[in-house]
Amino acid sequence: MTPCAVVIGVGAVQGIGGAVCLRSAKAGLHVYVAGRTASKIEQVVAQIIKQGGQASAYVIDSTKPAEVTALFQHIADEQRVPELVVHNVGGNTPSRFLHTEASFYEHLWRTTFLAGALVGQEAVRRMLPQGHGTLIFTGASASLRGKPMFAAFAAGKASLRNFAQSLAREFAGQGLHVAHVVIDGAVDGDRINQLGFGVGRVVRTLIKGASGSLKPEAIAENYWHLHQQPIEAWTHELDLRPFKEKF
Amino acid sequence: MTPCAVVIGVGAVQGIGGAVCLRSAKAGLHVYVAGRTASKIEQVVAQIIKQGGQASAYVIDSTKPAEVTALFQHIADEQRVPELVVHNVGGNTPSRFLHTEASFYEHLWRTTFLAGALVGQEAVRRMLPQGHGTLIFTGASASLRGKPMFAAFAAGKASLRNFAQSLAREFAGQGLHVAHVVIDGAVDGDRINQLGFGVGRVVRTLIKGASGSLKPEAIAENYWHLHQQPIEAWTHELDLRPFKEKF
Amino acid sequence: MTPCAVVIGVGAVQGIGGAVCLRSAKAGLHVYVAGRTASKIEQVVAQIIKQGGQASAYVIDSTKPAEVTALFQHIADEQRVPELVVHNVGGNTPSRFLHTEASFYEHLWRTTFLAGALVGQEAVRRMLPQGHGTLIFTGASASLRGKPMFAAFAAGKASLRNFAQSLAREFAGQGLHVAHVVIDGAVDGDRINQLGFGVGRVVRTLIKGASGSLKPEAIAENYWHLHQQPIEAWTHELDLRPFKEKF
Amino acid sequence: MTPCAVVIGVGAVQGIGGAVCLRSAKAGLHVYVAGRTASKIEQVVAQIIKQGGQASAYVIDSTKPAEVTALFQHIADEQRVPELVVHNVGGNTPSRFLHTEASFYEHLWRTTFLAGALVGQEAVRRMLPQGHGTLIFTGASASLRGKPMFAAFAAGKASLRNFAQSLAREFAGQGLHVAHVVIDGAVDGDRINQLGFGVGRVVRTLIKGASGSLKPEAIAENYWHLHQQPIEAWTHELDLRPFKEKF
Repeated sequence: MTPCAVVIGVGAVQGIGGAVCLRSAKAGLHVYVAGRTASKIEQVVAQIIKQGGQASAYVIDSTKPAEVTALFQHIADEQRVPELVVHNVGGNTPSRFLHTEASFYEHLWRTTFLAGALVGQEAVRRMLPQGHGTLIFTGASASLRGKPMFAAFAAGKASLRNFAQSLAREFAGQGLHVAHVVIDGAVDGDRINQLGFGVGRVVRTLIKGASGSLKPEAIAENYWHLHQQPIEAWTHELDLRPFKEKF
Repeated sequence: MTPCAVVIGVGAVQGIGGAVCLRSAKAGLHVYVAGRTASKIEQVVAQIIKQGGQASAYVIDSTKPAEVTALFQHIADEQRVPELVVHNVGGNTPSRFLHTEASFYEHLWRTTFLAGALVGQEAVRRMLPQGHGTLIFTGASASLRGKPMFAAFAAGKASLRNFAQSLAREFAGQGLHVAHVVIDGAVDGDRINQLGFGVGRVVRTLIKGASGSLKPEAIAENYWHLHQQPIEAWTHELDLRPFKEKF
Repeated sequence: MTPCAVVIGVGAVQGIGGAVCLRSAKAGLHVYVAGRTASKIEQVVAQIIKQGGQASAYVIDSTKPAEVTALFQHIADEQRVPELVVHNVGGNTPSRFLHTEASFYEHLWRTTFLAGALVGQEAVRRMLPQGHGTLIFTGASASLRGKPMFAAFAAGKASLRNFAQSLAREFAGQGLHVAHVVIDGAVDGDRINQLGFGVGRVVRTLIKGASGSLKPEAIAENYWHLHQQPIEAWTHELDLRPFKEKF
Repeated sequence: MTPCAVVIGVGAVQGIGGAVCLRSAKAGLHVYVAGRTASKIEQVVAQIIKQGGQASAYVIDSTKPAEVTALFQHIADEQRVPELVVHNVGGNTPSRFLHTEASFYEHLWRTTFLAGALVGQEAVRRMLPQGHGTLIFTGASASLRGKPMFAAFAAGKASLRNFAQSLAREFAGQGLHVAHVVIDGAVDGDRINQLGFGVGRVVRTLIKGASGSLKPEAIAENYWHLHQQPIEAWTHELDLRPFKEKF
């Protein structure tokens, strides 16, 4: 069994997921690039291979238990065992409270929480026998506090955060490093930029200057740092924000 | 339209929900006693009437949108408008992480979060036109932090907490008082005592003495206090624990 | 030994300290009204007596160990024992970081922290033998987070908050109820209104309407509620803000 | 002006301060090794030089404003400007609450807080003109919460944490990276091991196995990582604990 990285929730090459894939491949790991859209994850794989790394694309709907199990079984069948699993699913989604349907809450719960629970479970199951491994969940400002227009999203993100904490407290002593990263600010190349927030961000960038948003490569470097932390000094929660972001 | 209280998630007379019903009735409000089990809520209604108050029993599965809407419509049809809504659904439930099925996460999400979101939405919708009203959500120690054996429950409770915060931040300025109560400790007469934790609690009580658990009447008094807070001094989050509880 | 209340940090009748004195006297307790300025505390005593209550004025600089000890000894000499001690010293004070002298940090530390530590120590010492009593510390938004212009004040308030937590964790099991109240917003009649923030508040009030600030009487009612909490349901930290305050 | 690192609060080569000095020197920075005891800091300097780096020993009592100013003036006189300043003063100190004197609170305040405020002020003053620089404060579990036996220490550490937050919020937009590291667990080679906690730690280590404590080198690697974070992804608060530490 050779070690590998598994990144779930990969969109564009320029997003957080893509950057974490590239960073892991650069370090020599075979990377399973998992996401919903074949064309996008294949671009990430192509980019990795172009840079001399190794990767496989894997189309997945990580809100489906069977598909998550199948991914990890597939990895085992290929004689690999994950030493780094990154869960990066669930983009920032606003909603108008009085018009939010139960189906929308459920949809957000599946993407922001359930997918993470399923990935966490499979990751722990596969890493526990070897007694080491890193499991990282991507959080957001909304993981820490609720606010108007984000009641549904903040609820989902808060649950993922508490879930990650439960896992860290349960499995750290058995060698598994579970971390939660609070992405506190807009991310360059992220979905948020395509969803009507564009105007807001342009204004913000004009006010704040060129570095008003998080760079995926810089985020990826921090995920990799968490993975490199020796067993004697582990971080559970890491906040990341661009220097001009108010917090 | 006369004012009333609505308490959702009422079990035994001796539980938190029952005590809040009795406290609200004592203050002169007509109380809608809502819960899953007819026999239990009818006992609460009977107790209220015996003490000279007014109440109606309403059987509900508050995880169902249509049932929650129907309850609030029923109240309006009876020419009443809620001035106090208490959401008290979702008891402490342990689970073994590696053996937790997606269906269990979903079940806990429906009881700990979705029911609260539905109740919150209807409550806000009905109270907003009158420009005042109190909405209280019952939280737990697990609302604040995850721990082993409670990954699913802590996830659900954390989402309800962030959700309550979002509502408070969105609707306080319009006169709605949204509060979240952290019940930090075992509650006398609560479901936890019937679910295998009995032995644990006996041991704890022996060590701690007679007052090692929260009294529902004392909790209810605090819910009522939150409802009585004038608009010039509102509390959003209240922690409650028995004096010997470690925190 | 008859029970009494001790309120330290009393300024104007219209401030938090004054309101807590009046509330405690109304409940029948003899109140020791302690503060720096004789004329102010005498007004509070006069007001209490006018309303049929009992009180004594006590001039104190509570940053001096000997004076704090003397106050509690004086109370004992009068055959009284405190059942409620409220520490309300240390108003909101801005400072420009790069121009803050060590002496200013020390001054703020003495008023926001040391006075509280001294009062806490004497209060615990006197209440421990009887096995009950309430000790309340007044906090601020700055107790929870630092921000520009308030580095020195936020530091002092954060230390008082952690100190109160230590006391609660150490002495709750012995019957002492230690609470910390986060005053999150401007208070009517408070010192902040006289210190150059007046203009800012006027603007805020114009925007927010008549109820944009906390009423001392409403705050005092909450302090009294904390004192009334039975041993089975204690709150350690209570946040209070006017309904329109952002948080 | 050539860049340099300044580490204040350096004890043994094997402690956190010593390890941060060695790590910074390894990266090519001239390191000012500042601490109270000449013999100890000289050992650190000797070790750095032995490994091919550059360093100066500087004896300082960082609770004295004049001495802190003199250090930074000395650095400027040597034509150097700090790009990394690490404040690492103030070890874990228990105290018995009812027997704590005001002088002890003051002593702890000077070491845990005032020294940090003085160092922070000089660091900001020197780094602001160049528009970049990293300032790291060493915190502890007690920075986040108070507990019995640590009322005085937790108070001091909490104030340093809120202070660091104030600085981050005030100066991040001007290019200064201010971070606070929560050291959550016993540190190998740290003062705690020499202060009567030895027995406790032996027991803990026996239970937890060989890796029950934090390694200074691993901590230093994380300080260096914070310094390396690009302006697009800054962390303000980092928790570090050995894998078996409960949190």
